[in-house]
Amino acid sequence: MDIHELIQEMGRKARAAAAVLRRMTTAEKNAALAAMADALEADSDAIYAANAEDVAAAKAAGLSPAMVDRLTLTPARFESMTDGVRHVAGLPDPVGEVVWTRKRPSGIEIRKVREPFGVVAVVFESRPNVFVDTAALCLKTGNAIILRGGKEAVRSNKALAESVRRGLVSACGEAASDAVQFVEVQDHAAVAELVRATGLVDVAIPRGGERLIRAMCEAALIPVLKHYKGVCHVYVDDKADLAMALSILDNAKVQRPSACNAAECLLVHEALAPMFLPMVRAWAADKGVALHDDGVGVEYLSLDLNVATVRDYRAAIDFINANSSHHSDCIVTNDAGRAAEFLRDVDSACVYHNASTRFTDGAEFGMGAEIGISTDKLHARGPMGLEELTTYKYVVTGDGTLRA
Amino acid sequence: MDIHELIQEMGRKARAAAAVLRRMTTAEKNAALAAMADALEADSDAIYAANAEDVAAAKAAGLSPAMVDRLTLTPARFESMTDGVRHVAGLPDPVGEVVWTRKRPSGIEIRKVREPFGVVAVVFESRPNVFVDTAALCLKTGNAIILRGGKEAVRSNKALAESVRRGLVSACGEAASDAVQFVEVQDHAAVAELVRATGLVDVAIPRGGERLIRAMCEAALIPVLKHYKGVCHVYVDDKADLAMALSILDNAKVQRPSACNAAECLLVHEALAPMFLPMVRAWAADKGVALHDDGVGVEYLSLDLNVATVRDYRAAIDFINANSSHHSDCIVTNDAGRAAEFLRDVDSACVYHNASTRFTDGAEFGMGAEIGISTDKLHARGPMGLEELTTYKYVVTGDGTLRA
Repeated sequence: MDIHELIQEMGRKARAAAAVLRRMTTAEKNAALAAMADALEADSDAIYAANAEDVAAAKAAGLSPAMVDRLTLTPARFESMTDGVRHVAGLPDPVGEVVWTRKRPSGIEIRKVREPFGVVAVVFESRPNVFVDTAALCLKTGNAIILRGGKEAVRSNKALAESVRRGLVSACGEAASDAVQFVEVQDHAAVAELVRATGLVDVAIPRGGERLIRAMCEAALIPVLKHYKGVCHVYVDDKADLAMALSILDNAKVQRPSACNAAECLLVHEALAPMFLPMVRAWAADKGVALHDDGVGVEYLSLDLNVATVRDYRAAIDFINANSSHHSDCIVTNDAGRAAEFLRDVDSACVYHNASTRFTDGAEFGMGAEIGISTDKLHARGPMGLEELTTYKYVVTGDGTLRA
Repeated sequence: MDIHELIQEMGRKARAAAAVLRRMTTAEKNAALAAMADALEADSDAIYAANAEDVAAAKAAGLSPAMVDRLTLTPARFESMTDGVRHVAGLPDPVGEVVWTRKRPSGIEIRKVREPFGVVAVVFESRPNVFVDTAALCLKTGNAIILRGGKEAVRSNKALAESVRRGLVSACGEAASDAVQFVEVQDHAAVAELVRATGLVDVAIPRGGERLIRAMCEAALIPVLKHYKGVCHVYVDDKADLAMALSILDNAKVQRPSACNAAECLLVHEALAPMFLPMVRAWAADKGVALHDDGVGVEYLSLDLNVATVRDYRAAIDFINANSSHHSDCIVTNDAGRAAEFLRDVDSACVYHNASTRFTDGAEFGMGAEIGISTDKLHARGPMGLEELTTYKYVVTGDGTLRA
């Protein structure tokens, strides 16, 4: 079978499975998730064995220690994976939620109701736990999912896929067996076929680096929900509390530098610079942070920080709108008017006043779980939870009601 | 200037204008809309003259009478255009609306707030009133707009663009003058450049036929909000009231056959067919409707109707999911359980029980105005009003709050 026909056939099977998921109650979906977690635990030996083969092959191929680490399933990671599935089972189900109801003068009654998309394609890179995390979120929202992982994790993903399918079938029968499908074939054309499968796949979600996302967008005919890089800014105004500013900067930069919501650039009001920059230099020396002045727009993901001075808070807004990745940006000030302007005019998914950018996260925002952080403006922006994995439909009822 | 640079430059100007619009209050935006309507009325002689040139050229080029008619600005159409602008000024402004507020255990407070996209590109075909309608909707929602119209209407659109700009500048000053821009150059590459202007244009909305939409999606790197065809179904169940079924069919098919929400296919429960189909044939003869049995999936937009019998309501659901354009589909039945299943399982933007599909419309749904009807599932589905022309951002406030 050629790649085109293979992906089309997977799409058709996914659509049929989506029709089954659509009819399942919340309790039935939760039972399926529980069965999925149980199956993963029961199959852990086979999954570890497959993962060990991937890890051995990765080492033999000379992959970097960081890559090998990301690929490795430890008992702690395995447990957090199955815990995650059970956690998702316990979250509220957005499907069927009535967003609003309207009775119109014409006599019709309209309900706007949350619905599954239908079929979601997720393309991810090395970490095998993404397979299980995203499958659980999609199942909970009644979406069939087609997953395509990195070459180096193919044995692990295949073992996870077989286990998940076994769990699903034990809870829901054969009809749901195609609700989670894995693209085993490693041809790059498979990704292009997935994002061009209009009518079969409703949305694609890349879980990987910028190059993957750009390649998918270039090929795509279906919507792609994108999570580009996080180039986050902290602007310290001349009306800031300097101790607060330094503690926010420290939290935003140092607590977890590899996170997309970590700060990459400090902007300082020029009147404040003579007093504040020495404090910053002392802090940086203490925490091992390297300061730069040539890293505009750079996502370091490390203990590096770009520093620039700006004329005032309006210049900070302009700087951020020109150079930020529109993910999370912060103002530290005690001036309420300046804060309000900053929060209104900075065109980013999450804007902060006197709080660390590190809060941009599904759990911290009270969403329960997260499939990613969207830097898009359409459909979803910022952290995406279960609700963001749904669309809606209008349900209209009448009594033989006609349009005048 | 080459086309690429021309569109990039328009995008940069639009983004600067969007920053101005973002800071305008609702009252200021409404004043701009009023000034826009006033300017159009003051400039009506020039606009009619430009339109007369377009119409003469279209006739000389041998365009069909229907095309010439769509192109022609009559006094009634002109008035409905300026009335439309004033109507939009009177509608509630979604920008700034707080969707929800959350106080989190960490101490942060989160507000989810509606925001303009920033820059919208609209590509439309012959009717010049689309220029003014879409510009008004975008201005109201704080979005700068770049419009590209059909070749045959270029003089009309240019006159409208000049008048709209004059109105805008009179109300808001030069800073807002690029809030509504018109792509005058007729090279087809301009459309591709618009939908590839990532970082400058946030979303593209085609207002035209399927070929235009497909070409835009094929080229696009930015999201495209699509309004494909409307292949709408009416299913008449064996538990239907036949008089009600016939009146819904009549309204859905005959009231305005050229509308996308008109019915194109009647499905009849097979047990009902011997009794109901003779009634349908008599109605069709009376109303001049031609019945077909080979038009599955066809959008007639005329007094033509495809008719098929199905085994039962589940077969009707399957038929619709396989052949509908997922726009608007209806069940006529007195069985509440069957209706509930149909409304849940039919995967269309609008699903109807005992009401005409003709209600799928922004005004009928209480949205006040409509920029189109989305057959997409992401971001917007079904009628799109002002709210659907917005995104949101998360506004997070703290008091030096750090992530633990």
